[in-house]
Amino acid sequence: MSETTVRIDLGARSYDVLVGHGLLERAGALIEVRVGKRAVAIVTDTTVAAAQLPQLEAALAASRIRNRAVITVAPGEASKSLPVLARVCDELLGSGLERGDLVIALGGGVIGDLAGFAAAIVRRGVGFVQIPTSLLAQVDSSVGGKTGINAAAGKNLLGAFHQPSLVLADIKTLETLPDRQLRAGYGEVVKYGLLGDAEFFHWLDDNRERFARRDLDVLHRAVVRSVEMKAEIVSRDEREAGDRALLNLGHTFGHALEAWAGYSDRLLHGEAVAIGMAQAFRFSEHLGRAPPQTAARVAAHLKSVGLPTRIADIPGGEMPSRDELLALMAQDKKVRDGQLTFILTRAIGAAEIARDVPQDVVSEFLDTEVVSA
Amino acid sequence: MSETTVRIDLGARSYDVLVGHGLLERAGALIEVRVGKRAVAIVTDTTVAAAQLPQLEAALAASRIRNRAVITVAPGEASKSLPVLARVCDELLGSGLERGDLVIALGGGVIGDLAGFAAAIVRRGVGFVQIPTSLLAQVDSSVGGKTGINAAAGKNLLGAFHQPSLVLADIKTLETLPDRQLRAGYGEVVKYGLLGDAEFFHWLDDNRERFARRDLDVLHRAVVRSVEMKAEIVSRDEREAGDRALLNLGHTFGHALEAWAGYSDRLLHGEAVAIGMAQAFRFSEHLGRAPPQTAARVAAHLKSVGLPTRIADIPGGEMPSRDELLALMAQDKKVRDGQLTFILTRAIGAAEIARDVPQDVVSEFLDTEVVSA
Repeated sequence: MSETTVRIDLGARSYDVLVGHGLLERAGALIEVRVGKRAVAIVTDTTVAAAQLPQLEAALAASRIRNRAVITVAPGEASKSLPVLARVCDELLGSGLERGDLVIALGGGVIGDLAGFAAAIVRRGVGFVQIPTSLLAQVDSSVGGKTGINAAAGKNLLGAFHQPSLVLADIKTLETLPDRQLRAGYGEVVKYGLLGDAEFFHWLDDNRERFARRDLDVLHRAVVRSVEMKAEIVSRDEREAGDRALLNLGHTFGHALEAWAGYSDRLLHGEAVAIGMAQAFRFSEHLGRAPPQTAARVAAHLKSVGLPTRIADIPGGEMPSRDELLALMAQDKKVRDGQLTFILTRAIGAAEIARDVPQDVVSEFLDTEVVSA
Repeated sequence: MSETTVRIDLGARSYDVLVGHGLLERAGALIEVRVGKRAVAIVTDTTVAAAQLPQLEAALAASRIRNRAVITVAPGEASKSLPVLARVCDELLGSGLERGDLVIALGGGVIGDLAGFAAAIVRRGVGFVQIPTSLLAQVDSSVGGKTGINAAAGKNLLGAFHQPSLVLADIKTLETLPDRQLRAGYGEVVKYGLLGDAEFFHWLDDNRERFARRDLDVLHRAVVRSVEMKAEIVSRDEREAGDRALLNLGHTFGHALEAWAGYSDRLLHGEAVAIGMAQAFRFSEHLGRAPPQTAARVAAHLKSVGLPTRIADIPGGEMPSRDELLALMAQDKKVRDGQLTFILTRAIGAAEIARDVPQDVVSEFLDTEVVSA
C-alpha cells in the first residue's frame, strides 16, 4: 500500500498529512524525521488506548523520542469540557512538558479537538501531532487547526486555531471502526464531492459498495481526496474569513439538529451533517439556486449508503419545532450582525456562501422541513 | 498634553498603542475610528469599575458602539484562574458576543491577561482592546499579546499569544494609582533602560523625583519610551523564539520569588522584578560578564526609588532556601532541554540571553544570595 503526503500550505505553519496503511507502527520514526527529536505526551481515550496505544508506545520506544506521559480521558463528546481540559493541561504540565515538546493526539475528533486545544494553551502553545483513528477525524477534524471544547452556550465555542506539526492518518485504524462510525465519517467525505468536486462525488457513488466493505484502495483514495480538498481550502483561508466557510456545507442545519438531540448517540455528527446537506440542497432548490432533482439525487445517494436525510430519520419519535431550530442556528459561530451564513449550492460540486438569506425565507423553509419530517 | 502613537509592527496583526492624558473619555470615538464600529463587552474588576467604568461607559454611549455587557471580577491575582476564566467566557457568550465583536479589558495586568485570554478562545478568537489602568499594564502587559492565567504548576502556564487591536494607555488613570503600585510599575519601566537603553536609564535617574510626584510629562515620556522599546523587541520576535526573552530581565529570579511569596501582596510583580534585576546584575558580575560596580549602581538606583533589591527586603522575616528557589525556577516556561535561560548583562543597557550557565554555578550564586539576604 502506497503512502500519500498532502501538504497543508500555511507559510511558517505548513505541515504534512500522511495517509497510508500501518503508519501508527512507524509513528516514532516518522515524527523523529519530520518534526525532529522531541519529548512527547500522548492524549487519548480509554477505547482508543485499548486498541491502538500499545502500537504507538512501541513505535516511540523504538525511536529516540522520550514519552513523558499518557493522559487518558473518557470516550465521547462529554470530554470536550472545561474540567477535562483543565485536567489534561495540569497533567501535561505535571509531566514536565517543555515549550519545545509535542503533544500527540491519538483518537477521534473529540481527542484531536481536546488535545489540540490543550497544546494551544499550555505554556502559551506547544507543538502537536494528530494521529486520527476515525474516518471523521482523518478527513476533517485533524486537518486545518481548529481545536476546542464545548461551552454552556454551545458546541466548540471555546477554542483556538492551532495547526499541528504533522498528521498521521493510518487507514489501518479504520479496519476496526464500527459500521455506524464509518458511515458517519463518510458523511464528511461525500461533503467534499458535494461542495466542490462533482467527479469525486460520482466516483464515490460508483464505489459505495467497495467503501462499505472497507476496500483499502477505496478508503485510501477517499481520505486522500478529502484531505486534498480541505488542504486547498484551508490554505486559502486559514482563519475562516471567507472560503473556508464552504466546508460548513450541511453544518448550519446539522449543528442545530445535533444540539437539539443533545450531542448524543441518537445523532452522530456525520449523520447530522448528512441531514444538513440534504436540507441545504432542498433549500437551494427552494430558493431557485439549484435546478430541480438535484436535491433528490443527493438524498438518494445518502440513503443508499445508509445515512439519514430528513429530520424524521432521527430515531426517537419526537420532533424539534421550527422555532427551536431557529434559536439553535442563531448560536452559530459564523453569525455576523445577527445574520446567519448559509452554504447553498448551484449544483452538485458547486457550493457557495450566502449571507443574504432573509429570516422569513429561512422560517418558511424550516416549516416545510418540520412538517414533511 | 500631546498624544503619542506607537505602532506595534506585526504584519496583519499590527496595532497602535496610544499614550495620552484623558484617552478613556474619548475611548468610544477612538475605538470607532481605529477599529471600526463594533459591539463590545467590557471585562474589569470591582476596584477599577468604581474608579473608571463610568467614564468608559459614557464614552461608548456617546459613540455608535453597542455595549453588550460589563463583566466584573474580583481584583487581584486570584482572578487569573480557570474558574474565573470559565465564568468570563460564559458571560461573554451569554451576552451574544459575535466573532466580529470586541472584548475591552479595562484594568491592570490581571484584567488584561484574563480578558485577553478569554478573547483569544471565545469563538476561537475575537478582537480585543486593552485599556490598561496601572503603570505596569501600560508599559508591559498590555503590549505584545501575551495573555493567560495561572495553573496549579505555576504562573501564566496556560495562555495564548493574542494581539489586541488597539491599546489606550491613559496617563490620567495613573493619577489615582496607589504609591506602591506606581513604584512596582516603575520596576518594569526602568527594566527597559537596564536591558537596552542606558540613556533612558540615566534620564529616569535624573527625573526620579518628578516621577514620584507624578509629573505628567515625565510619566508620559516614561510610558512612551517603555512601549517603544517593547514594540521594537516584540516586532522582531512575536512568539519569543529569540530576542523577546530580553524582556525577561529580572524575571527568572523574580518569578521564583513571587511564587515563593505565594503571589501575594507581600511581594508585587514589579517588586519581584526589581529584586530579580538586582540579582541578574550581581550574577553577571559574579560570572565576570559585567564590570565591577555595575550591580551596585543599579541597586542604588532601585533603592533610591523605594524598590527592594535583595531577598531580605521582602517583608515577613522567613527566607526561601536555595533549593526551593531552584525548584521554582525550573518551572520557568523558557526551560529548554532542562536548561534555564538567564538574561544577563554586560553593562547598564546591554542585556543578553544566556542559555549556557551551568547548574552548579547557579546554585553557588544562589547560596550567596540566600546567605547575604
